[in-house]
Amino acid sequence: MRPYEHRVQYYETDKMGIVHHSNYIRWMEEARVDFLEQIGWGFDRLESFGIVSPVTCVDCKYKVSTRFPEKVKITVLAEEFKGVKLKLRYEMRKEDGTLACEGHSEHCFLTADGKVIALKKEYPEFLKALLEAAEIVGKQGHQA
Amino acid sequence: MRPYEHRVQYYETDKMGIVHHSNYIRWMEEARVDFLEQIGWGFDRLESFGIVSPVTCVDCKYKVSTRFPEKVKITVLAEEFKGVKLKLRYEMRKEDGTLACEGHSEHCFLTADGKVIALKKEYPEFLKALLEAAEIVGKQGHQA
Amino acid sequence: MRPYEHRVQYYETDKMGIVHHSNYIRWMEEARVDFLEQIGWGFDRLESFGIVSPVTCVDCKYKVSTRFPEKVKITVLAEEFKGVKLKLRYEMRKEDGTLACEGHSEHCFLTADGKVIALKKEYPEFLKALLEAAEIVGKQGHQA
Amino acid sequence: MRPYEHRVQYYETDKMGIVHHSNYIRWMEEARVDFLEQIGWGFDRLESFGIVSPVTCVDCKYKVSTRFPEKVKITVLAEEFKGVKLKLRYEMRKEDGTLACEGHSEHCFLTADGKVIALKKEYPEFLKALLEAAEIVGKQGHQA
Repeated sequence: MRPYEHRVQYYETDKMGIVHHSNYIRWMEEARVDFLEQIGWGFDRLESFGIVSPVTCVDCKYKVSTRFPEKVKITVLAEEFKGVKLKLRYEMRKEDGTLACEGHSEHCFLTADGKVIALKKEYPEFLKALLEAAEIVGKQGHQA
Repeated sequence: MRPYEHRVQYYETDKMGIVHHSNYIRWMEEARVDFLEQIGWGFDRLESFGIVSPVTCVDCKYKVSTRFPEKVKITVLAEEFKGVKLKLRYEMRKEDGTLACEGHSEHCFLTADGKVIALKKEYPEFLKALLEAAEIVGKQGHQA
Repeated sequence: MRPYEHRVQYYETDKMGIVHHSNYIRWMEEARVDFLEQIGWGFDRLESFGIVSPVTCVDCKYKVSTRFPEKVKITVLAEEFKGVKLKLRYEMRKEDGTLACEGHSEHCFLTADGKVIALKKEYPEFLKALLEAAEIVGKQGHQA
Repeated sequence: MRPYEHRVQYYETDKMGIVHHSNYIRWMEEARVDFLEQIGWGFDRLESFGIVSPVTCVDCKYKVSTRFPEKVKITVLAEEFKGVKLKLRYEMRKEDGTLACEGHSEHCFLTADGKVIALKKEYPEFLKALLEAAEIVGKQGHQA
């Protein structure tokens, strides 16, 4: 898996001169979109199956600030899969390798009319691709 | 008509220490939403009639920068109405009355399936409310 | 303490028709700015003392989606104060009281040249205002 | 000059299912940053000379909406240079070549303490690079 690269934009900075913290949540989405495409399950394909995937949780730990016009490399890992919830982990690093930010997002998978989709049963290939593509950390993940 | 008040947010600033210029386009939308509500044609009502109203043009002239945590008062004027296009003008002023930014937006009105709506014929009351609520500048506006 | 009210903006929605999850992080900042002002320690005052207050962590649990043009009431609570880090908790509720989102942010306090400020020693009045204004949950908070 | 490519992000969409119009203003900035780098006068270099370059005007004409996850190619042209103001033109095209949006931005060049810089006199090489890199439309541009 190739890390996603985000180029810091001027409009992402704030009056402290650094990237405003809210943007990292958006970068996680950018990296996630790219990750899903890399494993062959891009948004186009998910949508063609009528799958929507709302975010149920996010968190971010800010380690070192980033600045315009730095480039940030983002690695996505599937950290845990519990029945209907997928937890992804993100590492965002500067070009010199410094860890700038660590984050997580949690997702469920729904049909267009809001019913929960059991990936294991209904889309085993998608789940397999998720688990194979990324190092799964944690026990429950392995049992899935 | 009561001007709309926007409070500058920290996340709207950029590394120059001032509000990033892209936000004024968003403030125009905030003021427009408030303006439509004040004349009795809020988005809820427009949607209930199946009217969507895409933006076809915008422009902004930046006069004096604004900063966190200033308050900005925005006046909306219906400047022109040409057949199917409505042009609105926005004046954004600081609390001391200084003109910070002047902008325009142009809108058409469509049905959910993308057909142009002739406001004059199909929603004469909406058009009347628009024209009455605001000073109409320009000849074609008056003829509408 | 009066809860902060945020009006959902059209530009905050996404193609799912609901508010994009990244905006809640920004609303937390809006509510925090308002909270600090209510306790008499607005950004203006903090800046006049040369205090900057970067965000070190955020998290959000999304319960029920919000939509344009809903109003969202946000309550801010000082949840914990450990030496140099302040943890705030946010409850974001719809007008009918439904909990839409719960979040946290963690902050440190720095001088302009990046030195950590011990609030207890250097700004005891600020710390007192923080603790008094909000219900402090957790043991270490009380010991501060 | 290579056009700048922006990939539409999910968080840039709105409840109409298309990209919110305010984002095009941000894409113009992304393309501008890339353009300046391509002509050898990136923000880093401008900043090292103490040059800041605020936006004085923007406009956008929206032709055809764009959607997630389309790619948009943006061409930047220096359209006019009048003494102290540079006007850039942007063409934003879909992958099939369709013109999605046309825009302009106008810029002045200031020293850190806000004095207007006469590019022709003080940074003739920067001006030359701007004019050479792009087709200059309009008489006053050629005279510059």
